[in-house]
Amino acid sequence: MIKAYAAHEPGGRLKPFEYDPGPLLDNQIEIAVEHCGICHSDLSMLNNEWGITKYPFVPGHEVVGKIIEVGAGVKSLAVGQTVGLGWHSGYCMTCSSCNGGDHNVCGSAQGTIIGRHGGFSDKVRADESSVILLPYGMDESVVAPLFCAGVTVFNPLLELNIKPTDTVGVIGIGGLGHLALQFLKAWGCEVWAFTSSDTKREEAINLGAHHTVNSKHKDELKALRGKFDLILSTVNVKLNWNQYINTLVPKGKLHFVGATLEPLDLNVFSLMYGQRSVSSSPVGSPQALRKMLSFAQRHDVEPKVERFSFNQINEAIARLESGKAHYRIVLSK
Amino acid sequence: MIKAYAAHEPGGRLKPFEYDPGPLLDNQIEIAVEHCGICHSDLSMLNNEWGITKYPFVPGHEVVGKIIEVGAGVKSLAVGQTVGLGWHSGYCMTCSSCNGGDHNVCGSAQGTIIGRHGGFSDKVRADESSVILLPYGMDESVVAPLFCAGVTVFNPLLELNIKPTDTVGVIGIGGLGHLALQFLKAWGCEVWAFTSSDTKREEAINLGAHHTVNSKHKDELKALRGKFDLILSTVNVKLNWNQYINTLVPKGKLHFVGATLEPLDLNVFSLMYGQRSVSSSPVGSPQALRKMLSFAQRHDVEPKVERFSFNQINEAIARLESGKAHYRIVLSK
Repeated sequence: MIKAYAAHEPGGRLKPFEYDPGPLLDNQIEIAVEHCGICHSDLSMLNNEWGITKYPFVPGHEVVGKIIEVGAGVKSLAVGQTVGLGWHSGYCMTCSSCNGGDHNVCGSAQGTIIGRHGGFSDKVRADESSVILLPYGMDESVVAPLFCAGVTVFNPLLELNIKPTDTVGVIGIGGLGHLALQFLKAWGCEVWAFTSSDTKREEAINLGAHHTVNSKHKDELKALRGKFDLILSTVNVKLNWNQYINTLVPKGKLHFVGATLEPLDLNVFSLMYGQRSVSSSPVGSPQALRKMLSFAQRHDVEPKVERFSFNQINEAIARLESGKAHYRIVLSK
Repeated sequence: MIKAYAAHEPGGRLKPFEYDPGPLLDNQIEIAVEHCGICHSDLSMLNNEWGITKYPFVPGHEVVGKIIEVGAGVKSLAVGQTVGLGWHSGYCMTCSSCNGGDHNVCGSAQGTIIGRHGGFSDKVRADESSVILLPYGMDESVVAPLFCAGVTVFNPLLELNIKPTDTVGVIGIGGLGHLALQFLKAWGCEVWAFTSSDTKREEAINLGAHHTVNSKHKDELKALRGKFDLILSTVNVKLNWNQYINTLVPKGKLHFVGATLEPLDLNVFSLMYGQRSVSSSPVGSPQALRKMLSFAQRHDVEPKVERFSFNQINEAIARLESGKAHYRIVLSK
């Protein structure tokens, strides 16, 4: 039996919950969970905001732990290794996206907390393809958020071919944004933080920003016309996107990693005159995860976390909901 | 004196109009106009739809003619050569876009019909940098539309790194679209034409489409989920863009070359799940124009035009406004 924490209805408190996972499949790994991050998408799923949650619902998709069993067909991982698991727990491995190395856009990718039980648990299972070996020497107690938040902001640097000579702005300095600033600084870019909070300006500088902009001050934004090669939006609220597009250089890119629900009311002329683009991406492929971990270790990029034990799970969720967590929350055994 | 045709108020008829261009500048070319295409943006400017037209207004930015004079500093062109001139008649030549070969997104690029007099005229002037030598042997009487319509649809193939293995859809089979189909067929792609007109289906096939879709039939669009590497929109009306985004492959691109005025109400989730992007571009650089002409000649890509003489200029404009032209109109001396 696996001992987990589950909600039994939308927005419900998490309670101890046991389930029988059945026999381990040939291509599966069983991980003893040691640490698990909490992500905003755990909350969205908990509250059934996307209409796809099944209850009892076990959140948790930023897992770090030790392998305790491997399926008969597993070749690349072994019992005793320390590994991580993120948003995806399996891929079809046969479609053109999987064959092309873009597993994260596989149409049949399995979400770790979608229609199955996640990592707020003593054990969790996943396909070998989605389980990533942790580089030796990383601090296991804080790296869990890299497996979703980290790769979500790192992947665009790979996919959009961002260069160390580029000027990049990050909108929103929270769980995603505080990692984006660190990655971009290490990538060699000129880094700007957009934040509506004056108190976050100094924090942003400490995290790697060379400059900050208070996005509530229209004049500050206006003065930045034609400046950014990339703007990465990590927020999930509606902003004046056309104004941000005007701060892009010709051929600049506005990329969304925050799940903004309101449609983007984009002006075609703003895009056209500067040959600009708007895009979005979900987490990253297994290979992107591996590159991210290696890069993070080499450059001391580390999630800033508040730590709770698993039996404080409801307090931890309340803390995340308060919006005050600096910057990410990790549950540990 | 230069003898032109000008409108004196928004939407006004074109009437003979003379102006003194002053001394030829060192970096300028004077072209004796032999042919000039009419483009929808000539109409938009004529009617002051973008609020930037100055009257008297001389339209015309798809010019083909012979060089009759060159400025003292001109190095690359000579009197007697047959050349073309498109949307831009000069660039700053000093900004990062110009230095990077992306003159068409130079913030100080000079529009051939913006604040100056265009090619509905016996002569027109432009900077050397914007005047393109016509490859020997091209049919001068029909190529004028390549200088705006042609490069507008060709440039995205260069800029978006489109491969001959890609599947590409073209929305709107008119002045731009009929050239896009020809270029894409020659590029080696699987080519689909989206058209709301059943009568255009056969024409689209003749122009190079392998398949056609009636975009008014929702079921036809739905059956194409996840199919296209690129969709090129040449229309200026509002469509259900999120539905088109769903027809893109993962990492697919929806690119606008039609000047749609209504905002694009894009769903971030549709972009995110498939790591898709939306972009737009204006005409092309001088180098893109040269590559396009060479490619068009090698592959027999040719505008299908209706021809009028310059003294039928108002009839020609009425014909374009009727929406019935097949597919582009060229005025000739």
